[in-house]
Amino acid sequence: MKNMKHWSRFTGATALAAALLAQPLCADEGMWLFNDPPRKQLREKYGFQPSEAWLEHVQKSSVRFNSGGSGSFVSEDGLVMSNHHVGADCLQKLGTEQHNYYRDGFYAKTLEEEKACPDLELNVLMSIEDVTDRVNAAVKPGTSGDEAFAARRAVMAQIEKESLDKTGFRSDVVTLYQGGKYHLYRYKKYTDVRLVWAPEMQIGFFGGDPDNFEYPRFCLDAAFFRAYENGKPAKVQHYLKWSKAGAAENELVFVSGHPGATSRLQTMADLTYKRDFSFPRLLSWLNRMEVTLNAWSGRSEENARRAKELLFSAQNSRKARDGGLAGLLDPKLMGKKQEAEEKLKSAVANDPKLAEARDAWKRIEEAQNKIKEVAVEYNALEVGRGFGSRYFEIARTILRAVEERPKAEGDRLREFRESARESLEFDLFSAEPLYDDYEQVKLATGLTYLCQELGYTNALVQKVLNGKSPRDRAAGLVAQTKVKDVNARKALYQSKPEELASINDPMIQLARLVDSEARRVRKIVEGQDELKRQAYAAIARAKFAMEGPSSYPDATFTLRLSYGAVKGYQENGKNVPHQTTFEGLYERAKEHNYRPPFDLPKRWLDRKDKLDLNTPYNFVATTDIIGGNSGSPVINKNAEVVGLIFDGNIHSLVLDFAYTDELARAVSVHSSSILEALRKVYDAPNIAEELTTGRRPASTL
Amino acid sequence: MKNMKHWSRFTGATALAAALLAQPLCADEGMWLFNDPPRKQLREKYGFQPSEAWLEHVQKSSVRFNSGGSGSFVSEDGLVMSNHHVGADCLQKLGTEQHNYYRDGFYAKTLEEEKACPDLELNVLMSIEDVTDRVNAAVKPGTSGDEAFAARRAVMAQIEKESLDKTGFRSDVVTLYQGGKYHLYRYKKYTDVRLVWAPEMQIGFFGGDPDNFEYPRFCLDAAFFRAYENGKPAKVQHYLKWSKAGAAENELVFVSGHPGATSRLQTMADLTYKRDFSFPRLLSWLNRMEVTLNAWSGRSEENARRAKELLFSAQNSRKARDGGLAGLLDPKLMGKKQEAEEKLKSAVANDPKLAEARDAWKRIEEAQNKIKEVAVEYNALEVGRGFGSRYFEIARTILRAVEERPKAEGDRLREFRESARESLEFDLFSAEPLYDDYEQVKLATGLTYLCQELGYTNALVQKVLNGKSPRDRAAGLVAQTKVKDVNARKALYQSKPEELASINDPMIQLARLVDSEARRVRKIVEGQDELKRQAYAAIARAKFAMEGPSSYPDATFTLRLSYGAVKGYQENGKNVPHQTTFEGLYERAKEHNYRPPFDLPKRWLDRKDKLDLNTPYNFVATTDIIGGNSGSPVINKNAEVVGLIFDGNIHSLVLDFAYTDELARAVSVHSSSILEALRKVYDAPNIAEELTTGRRPASTL
Repeated sequence: MKNMKHWSRFTGATALAAALLAQPLCADEGMWLFNDPPRKQLREKYGFQPSEAWLEHVQKSSVRFNSGGSGSFVSEDGLVMSNHHVGADCLQKLGTEQHNYYRDGFYAKTLEEEKACPDLELNVLMSIEDVTDRVNAAVKPGTSGDEAFAARRAVMAQIEKESLDKTGFRSDVVTLYQGGKYHLYRYKKYTDVRLVWAPEMQIGFFGGDPDNFEYPRFCLDAAFFRAYENGKPAKVQHYLKWSKAGAAENELVFVSGHPGATSRLQTMADLTYKRDFSFPRLLSWLNRMEVTLNAWSGRSEENARRAKELLFSAQNSRKARDGGLAGLLDPKLMGKKQEAEEKLKSAVANDPKLAEARDAWKRIEEAQNKIKEVAVEYNALEVGRGFGSRYFEIARTILRAVEERPKAEGDRLREFRESARESLEFDLFSAEPLYDDYEQVKLATGLTYLCQELGYTNALVQKVLNGKSPRDRAAGLVAQTKVKDVNARKALYQSKPEELASINDPMIQLARLVDSEARRVRKIVEGQDELKRQAYAAIARAKFAMEGPSSYPDATFTLRLSYGAVKGYQENGKNVPHQTTFEGLYERAKEHNYRPPFDLPKRWLDRKDKLDLNTPYNFVATTDIIGGNSGSPVINKNAEVVGLIFDGNIHSLVLDFAYTDELARAVSVHSSSILEALRKVYDAPNIAEELTTGRRPASTL
Repeated sequence: MKNMKHWSRFTGATALAAALLAQPLCADEGMWLFNDPPRKQLREKYGFQPSEAWLEHVQKSSVRFNSGGSGSFVSEDGLVMSNHHVGADCLQKLGTEQHNYYRDGFYAKTLEEEKACPDLELNVLMSIEDVTDRVNAAVKPGTSGDEAFAARRAVMAQIEKESLDKTGFRSDVVTLYQGGKYHLYRYKKYTDVRLVWAPEMQIGFFGGDPDNFEYPRFCLDAAFFRAYENGKPAKVQHYLKWSKAGAAENELVFVSGHPGATSRLQTMADLTYKRDFSFPRLLSWLNRMEVTLNAWSGRSEENARRAKELLFSAQNSRKARDGGLAGLLDPKLMGKKQEAEEKLKSAVANDPKLAEARDAWKRIEEAQNKIKEVAVEYNALEVGRGFGSRYFEIARTILRAVEERPKAEGDRLREFRESARESLEFDLFSAEPLYDDYEQVKLATGLTYLCQELGYTNALVQKVLNGKSPRDRAAGLVAQTKVKDVNARKALYQSKPEELASINDPMIQLARLVDSEARRVRKIVEGQDELKRQAYAAIARAKFAMEGPSSYPDATFTLRLSYGAVKGYQENGKNVPHQTTFEGLYERAKEHNYRPPFDLPKRWLDRKDKLDLNTPYNFVATTDIIGGNSGSPVINKNAEVVGLIFDGNIHSLVLDFAYTDELARAVSVHSSSILEALRKVYDAPNIAEELTTGRRPASTL
């Protein structure tokens, strides 16, 4: 349930979702839209009716991390709470050979000491507008997939541009129910975000990969940031108050956050494609990355520092996909999916009003087969698994930005639309430290993978290698490219196409060398995705017609509301308790003889006597979450913080495909343990006071 | 350069070598046969002429570990020297939850305390006989690959059986120059082998995976065993004496050991197959195993103990194959190979006497293409990557033993020939501890891999899964099979085919379920291998005709003699010294803040003051070695031990394909450091005395 940044961008062709809700809703199921909340379910099961003000308040207190995660405002002075592991990206980038903040933690006692995160952007959802009709009207019936996609992309860019010009807000048209609905989301953007506090990695990620996705659990996976405006702490109207007691057993709780992607509404054709093709290949690539990064990290502590966060992402994604694949290979789960699909198909076949959906399943399968034909090339060249280096990503972004800029708004690749320009430049010109030796290892691994995937004798591969071995070629490219320098990067970005064409930078030249082929396969994938979208939309309309629209779309890394109860479970005949305590933390460390990753920071050993060992530490709830939800606040009926989402248990790994509350649980840090640790272990009473009073203490203002 | 046991058995179809020596020999190149040693090279370069007695003495002092490695007798009382990592298999099997010998080391102060290794067999080569003519005469010209292979297998089994009956020695017909020659090797066998001493894994494998295949290096990768006969220490006539000074810079040294497999004589068709197909697929599987075992090991110390050795093998193989693949993807190396092949081809084309070799390259390529067609199935089903559990291996061995037994000797699968029966039963009925939870993890991983490789909807895969997910199926199989019990195993093994058919054991049933398909693809591979062997033999004959026979065949895990000089090298403009010292060990540990795998055993920290820190510790030489050579003695002209091979440096990883002495080096433990450590760190003066005097001290006899 970790930061999804590094891997989410690589899911490409498989990230499609669908509009078919295949089964009746389970108890606490759903990642609900804020403009279509589960009023009925909450009223009937929990007797709770959220007011419009409640919804608006929670929505505007919620924050999206562009690095891939969630968070919330927790004081009027712009204090933002999230996970240590969501902050890992920033902690890693702020680190140097001298200061390993990711490993050792960070605490700014004064505003002056708060450190700006190099390229962190926070988004707050300000409004939602349904633009489905306008988007669909732009796509003329009978056009090909390519043309339909281009038309849809153009109208979406147009809507976004108008909204940006009118409101100044970041404006994204979001595809929901995979084409069933299109909503315009407007975000307030914070790009001056500073680090306030983070614990040591040892305690933030206590138990490491072995305990990841497991429960009982003992992590203080928390970190605090502060949003700034005009060089001062942002004054925010909406922020979450701190609960006095924190989460209690059986209490109704809510999670407001940004689940990344689910595949619950996909047809069997799409699910079997995942099972037989995309998941195994992705896992094979993740295994390779994990092994490479692990081996390189072992060579020195500095290597380990540089690769830590990416390694952690690789391990996390691997474990998540492994669990997902196990679900797809489980005939029980897939049997239910199959059954529901058959039922809906036959209902559609028997109702003349739903005729447009009749061949939808077949159309999806056909489109997916066409995608499969180019999927290997697409993943290697366009998704970038065949290159693997940040330098390559930068070079390609520069090349494409220069080439797309002269084009009409609607003709550009979607990421180069005008309304996304600021965010793109913010990321591209980041001062994040990059390291030649590290980039070289990743690039050599990528190029070796390229040889494997496209074949060593492939003409393009031979051009890419330029007569060298992957290792030698990587060394040369990394040594000679100027894109490692932010100023050079800016100059290249500003150049005209013909100027860039004459620049003698090998990484830009490499990006150019593969670009026409990468664009060609991307165009095929986008065209087929559009055909799938139309088919899924037909299924969605059939479903709405039969059952009414009160449902939730698959996750899309946009703001959602989940609900559920704080509740343990029974596993192999044993009761797994709803919460753990600090006492349990010390026991678990001892049980492992304090060996990494079960070692405790010195501070925690020294302060043990000061702590109330009965303080609730981590807890589980039936709330419906998925990767991207990391850092989401867990709140009670009064919209007070009672916890902080940081993971799901091992049984939650099938939530990609279906919700279940039998054993699957969301895992959170209990709000009480955050206060206790800040006060007794970290000597940070200021932050504790800011959380409980909702404003920075006067003495430090 | 590690123990090759676990992985060597999986190289199957790719383990073919060839008879073409493509380039003139480099300086110290060659893994020479003891009956065809490099007399000319030694005389011309080093002015040394080994006598027949010298050769016989070294040969009979050398020992092969059936677990995959080398060793030597170093006292008349049967003391055997090898590596800690060659002993790892035994150390792991002797371990329990209470005693982690692999981690903590072992020392038997008295004979009574020496512990028997559950299934370790040592082989000593007693004689070599050329049987080429007899083997070739059995294969009638014009027969198909299948028939030719069956005929060859039959005559080899016949020769072995006759030799066993006559001499009582283990008798193996060895294929050399991949069909150019067939030699009968007779081995004296020791099956009562006991552990005497091994250091802590921390120091035996200091630096772990990060330092593996690297240099400078700081490992005490040594262990001692004792061969027993009739319950008493074996009295051996040939053993190596200990050198007073140990290896010195520029000294001529020899390595007598069992290199596992090289591919130096393969044609471009075989090398490109490795590059494009078998290496990438093997690496993908190794990555998966490494990731799985690493993750499982992290869950508890006991898990880590159980999986340690296999994990280490996986990492070792992965690093070795990664280096090998880098060589295959290097146009410089492959260009030279290509050039030499073209040259030989054109010489053959122009000489009517060599006509039989003209289409040999084409025949090899065609046969390899046929192998490729079934390679995925072969690796999954016959090699066993799709099952991954020791329980499955045991079940299949039982099933096949029962089925092969009634057949005529020559018709049996080769591993069930009469002359190999004792060794097979010794291995099958081993008391090595096996663990259900561990087998289950490996089996679930294997079955998931099977789904990926053959396709989930494949009819055989569906039968294997039997309506369950891979995890559930693995759990059921492991829980219910009786083969985990050695007595049940023996009873099943003794049963008749019709009795075994009615046994209700799910693992035996699973083995039976896949056996006809596994045998079918194996038969295809064996038939095509035979055709390749014939073609390679033709090339070999052409080569012998042109250049004379004084060359060496590719490695085959049989005894070979290498030679070279103790010599550092220049890397990136820096001198890499020929040896390291104990001083360097302490420096390296400190540089890594004593964090694993750079932590030192307490004993080494406590005894630092007692040690002579200038003692030479590890050293490098230009001797030509490869995996399987681990544990080989390094000796001087007087056949005295000056060191102990345990690894190659990173540049040596291309030695699979071509020898080079520019940067590639064999890495050894210096003999002086072994004595110093035994005396000053391990309080084991007895062993030191046995090494220096050649017999057990009287006080302990």
